[in-house]
Amino acid sequence: VGVAGVPVGGPDLVLIAGPCAVENEEQTLRAAHAVRAAGAHLLRGGAFKPRSSPYSFRGLRKDGLAILARAREATGLGVVTEVLTPEDLPVVGPIADLLQIGSRNMHNASLLEAVGRYGRPVLLKRGYGATVREWLLAAEYVLAQGNPHVVLCERGIRTFETATRNTLDLNAVAWARRHTHLPVVVDPSHGTGRRDLVSPLSLAAIAAGGDGLLLEVHPDPHDALCDGDQSLTCEQLTSLVPGLRRVGEAVGRSWFPVPLYPRWVAEAAAR
Amino acid sequence: VGVAGVPVGGPDLVLIAGPCAVENEEQTLRAAHAVRAAGAHLLRGGAFKPRSSPYSFRGLRKDGLAILARAREATGLGVVTEVLTPEDLPVVGPIADLLQIGSRNMHNASLLEAVGRYGRPVLLKRGYGATVREWLLAAEYVLAQGNPHVVLCERGIRTFETATRNTLDLNAVAWARRHTHLPVVVDPSHGTGRRDLVSPLSLAAIAAGGDGLLLEVHPDPHDALCDGDQSLTCEQLTSLVPGLRRVGEAVGRSWFPVPLYPRWVAEAAAR
Amino acid sequence: VGVAGVPVGGPDLVLIAGPCAVENEEQTLRAAHAVRAAGAHLLRGGAFKPRSSPYSFRGLRKDGLAILARAREATGLGVVTEVLTPEDLPVVGPIADLLQIGSRNMHNASLLEAVGRYGRPVLLKRGYGATVREWLLAAEYVLAQGNPHVVLCERGIRTFETATRNTLDLNAVAWARRHTHLPVVVDPSHGTGRRDLVSPLSLAAIAAGGDGLLLEVHPDPHDALCDGDQSLTCEQLTSLVPGLRRVGEAVGRSWFPVPLYPRWVAEAAAR
Amino acid sequence: VGVAGVPVGGPDLVLIAGPCAVENEEQTLRAAHAVRAAGAHLLRGGAFKPRSSPYSFRGLRKDGLAILARAREATGLGVVTEVLTPEDLPVVGPIADLLQIGSRNMHNASLLEAVGRYGRPVLLKRGYGATVREWLLAAEYVLAQGNPHVVLCERGIRTFETATRNTLDLNAVAWARRHTHLPVVVDPSHGTGRRDLVSPLSLAAIAAGGDGLLLEVHPDPHDALCDGDQSLTCEQLTSLVPGLRRVGEAVGRSWFPVPLYPRWVAEAAAR
Repeated sequence: VGVAGVPVGGPDLVLIAGPCAVENEEQTLRAAHAVRAAGAHLLRGGAFKPRSSPYSFRGLRKDGLAILARAREATGLGVVTEVLTPEDLPVVGPIADLLQIGSRNMHNASLLEAVGRYGRPVLLKRGYGATVREWLLAAEYVLAQGNPHVVLCERGIRTFETATRNTLDLNAVAWARRHTHLPVVVDPSHGTGRRDLVSPLSLAAIAAGGDGLLLEVHPDPHDALCDGDQSLTCEQLTSLVPGLRRVGEAVGRSWFPVPLYPRWVAEAAAR
Repeated sequence: VGVAGVPVGGPDLVLIAGPCAVENEEQTLRAAHAVRAAGAHLLRGGAFKPRSSPYSFRGLRKDGLAILARAREATGLGVVTEVLTPEDLPVVGPIADLLQIGSRNMHNASLLEAVGRYGRPVLLKRGYGATVREWLLAAEYVLAQGNPHVVLCERGIRTFETATRNTLDLNAVAWARRHTHLPVVVDPSHGTGRRDLVSPLSLAAIAAGGDGLLLEVHPDPHDALCDGDQSLTCEQLTSLVPGLRRVGEAVGRSWFPVPLYPRWVAEAAAR
Repeated sequence: VGVAGVPVGGPDLVLIAGPCAVENEEQTLRAAHAVRAAGAHLLRGGAFKPRSSPYSFRGLRKDGLAILARAREATGLGVVTEVLTPEDLPVVGPIADLLQIGSRNMHNASLLEAVGRYGRPVLLKRGYGATVREWLLAAEYVLAQGNPHVVLCERGIRTFETATRNTLDLNAVAWARRHTHLPVVVDPSHGTGRRDLVSPLSLAAIAAGGDGLLLEVHPDPHDALCDGDQSLTCEQLTSLVPGLRRVGEAVGRSWFPVPLYPRWVAEAAAR
Repeated sequence: VGVAGVPVGGPDLVLIAGPCAVENEEQTLRAAHAVRAAGAHLLRGGAFKPRSSPYSFRGLRKDGLAILARAREATGLGVVTEVLTPEDLPVVGPIADLLQIGSRNMHNASLLEAVGRYGRPVLLKRGYGATVREWLLAAEYVLAQGNPHVVLCERGIRTFETATRNTLDLNAVAWARRHTHLPVVVDPSHGTGRRDLVSPLSLAAIAAGGDGLLLEVHPDPHDALCDGDQSLTCEQLTSLVPGLRRVGEAVGRSWFPVPLYPRWVAEAAAR
């Protein structure tokens, strides 16, 4: 699956990183530059946010998309962002290089079929209570509309354990690698819910066969509007990437080259 | 919450029964007459069916709605049927006396807000992996649009137990009765997944404080297109109702009178 | 299964009630008199307590057993108390009319076989993470030693839900009634972990087919050394029993007569 | 924790491998030589087997211990084997270099205290339904008796997922590494229940910070008396170890030297 020039699911590992929510231009650009410098290939950021409560912050919506577009222009990183409804597709679709279907929407057949028809690459998160077989059947809803560009994402399931927000299910990653040709990336931020566990579980996700990672990174997690407890700082991401590369090499995976700055490309072309 | 003249959540118990899916007119009418004769107040039946696989039977759709409308005309029972997307509302809404939001859609905020704006009474099933607090927050999505007519429905959660399809959570019923003024009905068909357990769990649901039941009934469960294993026969429903009435009386609840046949009403008016 | 003259699993319902832990003679006797007056047939009380932490209160042990014996003498109620190891059997066995195997010990084969050989009636609690099939196999460990007097006890399982301590699984009660001839009692105190949910779930347990209840009752729950949050007051038990009797009658079960005071029996014999 | 000269929880990784159950001398010796040749440091094998059903194969018991002793003599590998009850300690203890407490016995306080007093190193498996906090409290039962030699073992928990036997919880491994100084090893054989997932999850376990692995290996898994579906062949183990070493190096861990053959040691001493 090619996303803004980055092949997901090939021999190389891919890192998608960025803030849970786009909060403002300064926060998003700082995060985008930092994750690019750390070695990330794609920028994640939520403009339309699904929330359990209708009274929680639900994202900057269109303004958030515009900020993501400017971050892509500045850094060269393709954009991964969530779409919540078929009606939002005409707005979200043109900005998203990879359209995220969130965990709560894994069973939303009309949304799956709409992104299937839209044709853009899709990141399909596993429902937090869904079996791995249901996860693949949800992917079928997209594939059956003629869109083969589906990336699966394991993000933790609900169990009785309360020390962590979810239980990251790396069995599911290895299982999916054996039962489908679709790429599988892993989200240890939601999978653990705790900043101090994100790094070891990121390494484990690569060792288990994950094709890449989806990580929440925030310039100042303590002030984050959502998911601050599970966001890495930019410095933590920078420290983590060399270990990811080493574990990747140990299991035969290399690191895809970080996209060039568009400015450099333009300057080179001008010369 | 008043549904086709039947008050849900008042002092009286309410029984919603019928087939999982509308398969054809004959099956639906047989079921409708039988459940009415057994003491049911509302007819359930799926025309638009949510399925894990895109290749499963997904319902008769508009034709199914027309059959449900004829069944209502023939029996006087109000219709409970599921709506899957906001776009289907103009089609499903006029037929449904009570609009069902299925377990897989409990987190579908745009659908919840759409039925909230539509104003028709809503049956909100608990997500199979959702906490009781999330269930109430999902109801808030409907209420916040100005639609106060929400009926909660417990239908079982996923656990490690494999002897039953789900684990019916009657703790949740008692908890919801104490934490909200909204009516709570219980679906032991999905909550157990086994015909032989539906009757005892129906009795238990009433004893735990449930305001009513949602039961799958099929004239010939062995030939059912879906959920045959958990559907009662018409005869089993007929045997069950007297016990439900007795347990209801034991906890201070009476049985709402079964709606009159429209034909009788018309004849009486003609005289 | 006959326990101190009380038949468990016959046509009549049986109520086992008392404090989580025997704390002192005054508390235990107050509780015993109160639960007898409310309609209970057997007295529960822990002398040897299993605890997750080695540093928690682990019971009065032998002193607790002596108090239970005095409570039986005073009230005529048979004693239900837990045995933790085969070595404790010579001490606990002579005092216990019904030997409780706790949830944490459901898989403890050597303990199960020891109580199987001992021959006294056994109350086998379901493991909080055990399937219903494993629960029956654990009973087989007792039965295979030639002791047929096993009473099963459902006490809730662990799930993702955090609003309640456990999820009481009444599916399991109905399932066990259909798959075994052994009596099944229900413990809604552990099954909910919340005093305000114990009464509705007790009613539901009887409606689901339970042969009786195991309830934690404490004269002053706020001062309880353990499980105060889930203990009924004596007054709450007194209010609950008439409802239990009514629901029992609704499902064809009567209430076993409360044992006579030994003092009355002695006086009558003396006359 | 030193086990037969092998330090568990130090900078080096440790591999414990062998059959689920000791079936006969030939099978055990073949497995022992093969796992030693592949790079394992300790031999696992069950002589006393815990089983859900009293009618399943429960191990060769004393005969099995004797076979394990001969395997140790032949290969130089220390022995890891399970003890089920305090009464078996005088028999199992002298043979076991590392005494295994199984998942079903994690809450068995009298057994934990008995091995605590016995003083031999203990491998404490997490209960399949136990939280990580309860797991550490179970370790406290051993530690509080003055035995500091406890190795924790994550072996998967029960969830709603049915594609795998258990859900291996690597969150728990990273969490335990941060909340205790005790070594943590991982059992992906039980954690997945499927041979084809054991290798990727073994790599992931090391990347997550595990100090070693506990793997089921059988010369002919299809004829295994128990757990054949999750046992690696000797060839699969041989293929896996180089990858484990590479991932270990990537996270800063080296591979402890495999113990010398006692025969070589004796010959060298004789020269």
